[in-house]
Amino acid sequence: MTNSLADSSAEVTANRAWRLRRRPAGAAVPGDLELVSEPVAPLEDGQALVRTLVLSVEAASRIWMGHQRAFMPPVDLGAVMRGVGIGEVVQSRREDMKVGDIVAGFVGWQEFCCADDRRLEAPLSVLPSPLPAPVSAFVGILGHPAITAYLGVDFLDPRPGQTVVVSAAAGSVGSIAGQLAKLRGARVVGIAGGPAKCRHVVEDLGFDACVDRKDPDWAALLDAALPDGVDGDFENAGGPILDHLLMRLNLNARVLLCGEVAQYDDSGDRSGWQGLVNIDQIHMQRATMRGLIVTDHLDRWPEAIGALAELWGSGQLRYDETVVSGLDEAPSALTDLLAGDTTGKLIVAVAEPSTIPGHPLTTSAA
Amino acid sequence: MTNSLADSSAEVTANRAWRLRRRPAGAAVPGDLELVSEPVAPLEDGQALVRTLVLSVEAASRIWMGHQRAFMPPVDLGAVMRGVGIGEVVQSRREDMKVGDIVAGFVGWQEFCCADDRRLEAPLSVLPSPLPAPVSAFVGILGHPAITAYLGVDFLDPRPGQTVVVSAAAGSVGSIAGQLAKLRGARVVGIAGGPAKCRHVVEDLGFDACVDRKDPDWAALLDAALPDGVDGDFENAGGPILDHLLMRLNLNARVLLCGEVAQYDDSGDRSGWQGLVNIDQIHMQRATMRGLIVTDHLDRWPEAIGALAELWGSGQLRYDETVVSGLDEAPSALTDLLAGDTTGKLIVAVAEPSTIPGHPLTTSAA
Repeated sequence: MTNSLADSSAEVTANRAWRLRRRPAGAAVPGDLELVSEPVAPLEDGQALVRTLVLSVEAASRIWMGHQRAFMPPVDLGAVMRGVGIGEVVQSRREDMKVGDIVAGFVGWQEFCCADDRRLEAPLSVLPSPLPAPVSAFVGILGHPAITAYLGVDFLDPRPGQTVVVSAAAGSVGSIAGQLAKLRGARVVGIAGGPAKCRHVVEDLGFDACVDRKDPDWAALLDAALPDGVDGDFENAGGPILDHLLMRLNLNARVLLCGEVAQYDDSGDRSGWQGLVNIDQIHMQRATMRGLIVTDHLDRWPEAIGALAELWGSGQLRYDETVVSGLDEAPSALTDLLAGDTTGKLIVAVAEPSTIPGHPLTTSAA
Repeated sequence: MTNSLADSSAEVTANRAWRLRRRPAGAAVPGDLELVSEPVAPLEDGQALVRTLVLSVEAASRIWMGHQRAFMPPVDLGAVMRGVGIGEVVQSRREDMKVGDIVAGFVGWQEFCCADDRRLEAPLSVLPSPLPAPVSAFVGILGHPAITAYLGVDFLDPRPGQTVVVSAAAGSVGSIAGQLAKLRGARVVGIAGGPAKCRHVVEDLGFDACVDRKDPDWAALLDAALPDGVDGDFENAGGPILDHLLMRLNLNARVLLCGEVAQYDDSGDRSGWQGLVNIDQIHMQRATMRGLIVTDHLDRWPEAIGALAELWGSGQLRYDETVVSGLDEAPSALTDLLAGDTTGKLIVAVAEPSTIPGHPLTTSAA
């Protein structure tokens, strides 16, 4: 893999960045973004230069490419594509960042970003040193996807005897959410795309059942897998399957809205969306539906990371990564993710760390 | 009005009752129910005979006539139509009920019901004696509609500077909910059907604005009335207006599902329902949507009734009734309610109280 990564020993004179050229019409395609090479400006006081090590590929990117009303504003046309990742500080004129610090946050889809201490929105956070896990873990099992799963399952509060449904069950959030709900004693039913993913969800992740959403009989299969209804829904997909699940909610059920990936490939006018007709069941079953954005709850990140690290370290939690190599591959990786073709956490490996040489970049390399 | 009411001094030999003959196809029509005259069986030990004084007409009746999955099972075909009301005990072989007791609960759409102490579901509750308000108040301002408003507004928790929307704002629940939200300092925008109702909501009930849902420009009018978005939605209607409001939710907004009357006139297969496409905004705005059924919270009824009685008694809360006279009129009253043709709490006055003669039957008669 190393050959295709940026040579981290070279002097930094140019940056390569994916810029948004047009908003997608329907599914995002690689041509919506353009890879440009640009000079790197000299640092000013209060700035650090951060080299991207790994990028997190996630469905939210599709939202940001469009112009939906969402939890962050759309990416401006022409701007560097927004993206979460892990980087290393390679030059610094900031007092709070030194060369060799490993940082997490919105580095963008680019080889280098300028971390300016006057940028108050979405600042980069410095990770502990020495880094206690492979780099990519901090956008996966010890980062925002797994913390989302942790906080979402906490809201669902599943008990033994209850049933929890998890959509996108083979994905970075769903795979962890289902395992956490199992650890709390609930029966856990996954929903995933295709027989191979469903097998993975049951055999490798330990869910009690998994329904293939691509099966024409998904509704009947889901009903059969839910003989006692639904007490908690960890919702990553939305759309017709959510509508179906609403009719299976039990009294006082909880629905956590974590993603609506079934609705992201849209041109912006929502005219093609299939609405939820069964929302009255939230009323009839005295249910609660809530939305979760993990960055609202930074106060609980240490607790979550601690718990996840312990469960992962002791082998009680399985975490899978799919690694794509090289910044050039980021757009096609996103296309694959949105098409449902990937399993586990999807990572773009951009550069080997030069400031902590030999430290594993991904969990599979550990 | 008294002339058309049942003569409460006659000996009880027969009961007249509305029985469900067919499930409505679309809107409920009076022919869906049949008024039958039936003998009254002699009481057994543990039973009391209760004469209906007033019936509460409410949108939930339409749900119970159909076969939707709801908070109570459908009324069986041929059974007496379910309905909440206030009655007086006219004969008793129950230790916990004596002649003259005034009781509240599911008396049914009939002149007399048999209150059996072995009927554990939905038992009748004995009201305080002497009765501290007109009879009908206990299905209105001191009963389940106003308690629903009280608990719902408590969930919305509106603060000064926030905006609350209330649909069916001229109705029994909405009219109280909006006033309670105003008393908490919020800006309150009502939604009601027709200019006369909207004037009533603003001029008589004191809402800050009210939008006519029958106006073809309702969406633009609503946006204009909500310059600062929506922090709380007390939802009584559902349907396209709720979908529109979802796009106006502010961060951490709350949506209380109290009714979906826009969807009740249905034949049962939901094929004609317009779904909610903007449910993702519950996620994006980190909002919470919750359903409320007031009988789940009997522990809070005394607190609610105490607060409502004080606000009503001191003139801080306005309560309006529309009174229809005679059991015969119950089905057409329901039709009028569902058509949006009534204002305030809709009551059927069935009989003057014989055991507390002279006590006002309705608040307008007080």
